[in-house]
Amino acid sequence: MSKEITARAADYSQWYNDLVIKGGLADYSAVRGCMVIKPYGFALWEKMRDVLDAMFKETGHQNAYFPLFIPKSFLSREADHVEGFAKECAVVTHYRLKNDPAGGGVVVDPEAKLEEELIVRPTSETIIWNTYKTWIQSYRDLPVLVNQWANVVRWEMRTRLFLRTAEFLWQEGHTAHATMEEAVAEARQMLDVYADFAENYMAMPVIKGVKSPSERFAGAIDTYCIEALMQDGKALQAGTSHFLGQNFAKAFDVQFLNRENKLDYVWATSWGVSTRLIGALVMAHSDDDGLVLPPRIAPLQVVIIPIHKGGEQKKQIDERVEDILQQLKKAGIRAKYDDSESRPGWKFAEHEMKGVPVRIAIGARDIEAGVAEVARRDTREKMHLPLDNLAEKISGLLEDIQQDIYHKAKSYRDAHITPANDFNEFCELLDHKGGFISAHWDGTPETEEKIKEMTKATIRCIPLDAEKEEGKCILTGKPSTQRVLFARAY
Amino acid sequence: MSKEITARAADYSQWYNDLVIKGGLADYSAVRGCMVIKPYGFALWEKMRDVLDAMFKETGHQNAYFPLFIPKSFLSREADHVEGFAKECAVVTHYRLKNDPAGGGVVVDPEAKLEEELIVRPTSETIIWNTYKTWIQSYRDLPVLVNQWANVVRWEMRTRLFLRTAEFLWQEGHTAHATMEEAVAEARQMLDVYADFAENYMAMPVIKGVKSPSERFAGAIDTYCIEALMQDGKALQAGTSHFLGQNFAKAFDVQFLNRENKLDYVWATSWGVSTRLIGALVMAHSDDDGLVLPPRIAPLQVVIIPIHKGGEQKKQIDERVEDILQQLKKAGIRAKYDDSESRPGWKFAEHEMKGVPVRIAIGARDIEAGVAEVARRDTREKMHLPLDNLAEKISGLLEDIQQDIYHKAKSYRDAHITPANDFNEFCELLDHKGGFISAHWDGTPETEEKIKEMTKATIRCIPLDAEKEEGKCILTGKPSTQRVLFARAY
Repeated sequence: MSKEITARAADYSQWYNDLVIKGGLADYSAVRGCMVIKPYGFALWEKMRDVLDAMFKETGHQNAYFPLFIPKSFLSREADHVEGFAKECAVVTHYRLKNDPAGGGVVVDPEAKLEEELIVRPTSETIIWNTYKTWIQSYRDLPVLVNQWANVVRWEMRTRLFLRTAEFLWQEGHTAHATMEEAVAEARQMLDVYADFAENYMAMPVIKGVKSPSERFAGAIDTYCIEALMQDGKALQAGTSHFLGQNFAKAFDVQFLNRENKLDYVWATSWGVSTRLIGALVMAHSDDDGLVLPPRIAPLQVVIIPIHKGGEQKKQIDERVEDILQQLKKAGIRAKYDDSESRPGWKFAEHEMKGVPVRIAIGARDIEAGVAEVARRDTREKMHLPLDNLAEKISGLLEDIQQDIYHKAKSYRDAHITPANDFNEFCELLDHKGGFISAHWDGTPETEEKIKEMTKATIRCIPLDAEKEEGKCILTGKPSTQRVLFARAY
Repeated sequence: MSKEITARAADYSQWYNDLVIKGGLADYSAVRGCMVIKPYGFALWEKMRDVLDAMFKETGHQNAYFPLFIPKSFLSREADHVEGFAKECAVVTHYRLKNDPAGGGVVVDPEAKLEEELIVRPTSETIIWNTYKTWIQSYRDLPVLVNQWANVVRWEMRTRLFLRTAEFLWQEGHTAHATMEEAVAEARQMLDVYADFAENYMAMPVIKGVKSPSERFAGAIDTYCIEALMQDGKALQAGTSHFLGQNFAKAFDVQFLNRENKLDYVWATSWGVSTRLIGALVMAHSDDDGLVLPPRIAPLQVVIIPIHKGGEQKKQIDERVEDILQQLKKAGIRAKYDDSESRPGWKFAEHEMKGVPVRIAIGARDIEAGVAEVARRDTREKMHLPLDNLAEKISGLLEDIQQDIYHKAKSYRDAHITPANDFNEFCELLDHKGGFISAHWDGTPETEEKIKEMTKATIRCIPLDAEKEEGKCILTGKPSTQRVLFARAY
């Protein structure tokens, strides 16, 4: 079979690539570092986007759209921001091509050089805060609760489909508030929204935490994050929400008259998740036979495959399936009848590869017996279910699968949060068990950097629910007041 | 009042800008030629996008996503295409900035020069057909029916909000077929989809036609279009659908094994509409008091405004409105209660400006009498409707408004298609009546160009339903077999 998948145990990284490419999610493109998101992958993104978008609107946000390009000088306005984002970005320097005088196609027209270079947005704080200056004059104009769905570009040297690409799709929320308390509450609220989405739709357990200073977003006062664990024991940052203080308001001079009629700078947050989530989803649940998708965001939830000999049987099955499809559709289930010409075995493998949560196989004898063979993608369990009220049973089954996938991932994750009390133990765990390691750290960036150099592990977050505990830094032995979570990460 | 709108009769162009900016649809940005689409404008785009997206899916298309960047050499592959699109485009030449050694912020790092420049997509035929080469081997892989929602950039020297901006949002369908007939049928089908959308959702009558050779898309064999008429008598191209023949398949060497097991080049179409449609919508229906939006795509269909003296009355109204809102929501109507602190008169003007189709004003006495004052935005007609079963009445009213807006625009449009039988008459009509002028043309690009130079009118289209009629070209007197539609256009 041409679509063989490398086993996780053999080569995890190759397994991931096989799933993404052979599962029809995405592919490399002719442009370095940019990917093509294929229809099946995009359908998955649409499902995720629609759920998130509804959650954002439910919490009072509206969508808008800001320019793709950012004037170069804008990036320099916020000191930390420029350090973080100016270095690896796509720079537009000209606005015209012309025929090559030497006859070799087209060349850049040197006369069409821009006075100021434009940067393809790596993130939009600067262009948006430059706009907010005209939107906000008084406390009456606040809060501004805006989100944007957009493409962004960060020139990455080492790229991986979905996980790290030069161009990616994301949403970026940018809010403006009259008080610090309100902005912090907003940043925390959006972190909760992300965690809710990750756990209840992607079936992916996450730890909510705050980043150490050196892992903060460039320009943030605090970066909150959700961290997930992949099956190879590496962590993945699945979403971030930043409390930006007044940094961008000061950089772009966005002041407002407060209730006391005094001028003050506006408080800001920004928060985002990206197509990287698709990479996380693939790695969180899938197996050596292909994708395993949680029903709530699977583009296709049920596939029905006829098992027949000859046209007469096929016709009989077609009729009954038509009726079943109606039932399923009425119950809000996304189902498809795959009566293409391929052999059933080939179709089984194809839909397993694509992670369709439930497969229904129906033969002529099944119809006589009034049953169908129903198979779960996640556990491979097969059962015979009566055709009467099938939709109701399938609804329940999809819900079971959603929960079971989550609990499986959660058991794995919970079993991979391990305390380490000295540096040897820490290294031992990293190399032989993986996952999150809960350890004391002296709170300095120097120690964090040193641990990273020595072990490739970084502080993923300081969990929001961490208990205070006296201890000693695993590297320096200096005093610490709580454990933080380390891991090797994507 | 700060939000005064220039009258159409005084300055049509300024009236348009006032509507877009003061109506909260969009604004200029710090980046030349790029606009900010504000939340209200974006909500309108979302409504349009969702309807179109459902229509595309209904006709068998799937969404995907292709890279923002196109290697410069790709543009040169198709001879006509490069002429049309290479000239005014954003060119990425570098991938890194660095700190200015002279201390002035950041500068382009000369060492980070790309080997081959990247063009920010002005349209995606080239990058997509380069991808299709890997997707298509046999007739079994066809048709490919893919659409993309994306941003594109064309470096325009003279820009106008929505109508002509350097960056704009659009959808671009790109389909691949085994036969010419199938590709032509697809291009025609999508033209029908666009016309259906324009007429039945935007309430904007359109003429379906085919472009003259000189107005074709760069690389197309035939460009089909829908043409609309604005209130100032100028035409606006609202959507195009191209039959591309085998041009892009040949340029990117996309061949397939057909049913006869022979290699052949794949047949192509592409089709698109953009945020330009928002400009068309504004100009088609609005008046001197603001936007007039057709209910089916209005972000907000009904606004309810309380008229009260004191808190006791307000409380009484609040309670009743709560109930009305529930009713409206249940009937699928997008409604909002505006009980902000502003004066009712100010709110009336604000919602008129924003084109909310129906306004309901409710006072304490109205509640006693069991009625509400309901006002239509389009005709300004006011009526008292009983509060019982209000939702049902409002549903019907919204449908009436939708139809009436369409018929008003259609009457205007129909009254502005005028035949001209000689060049004097043609010029006279252009200068004093405007609209479409139906005239004979000798079929040559030279004559077309000359008429354009002399009158600024272009051939908008050769209507698909045009009858054959012997005649003489209005400029050259040479024989012609049918009339074509000329107009000055956006």
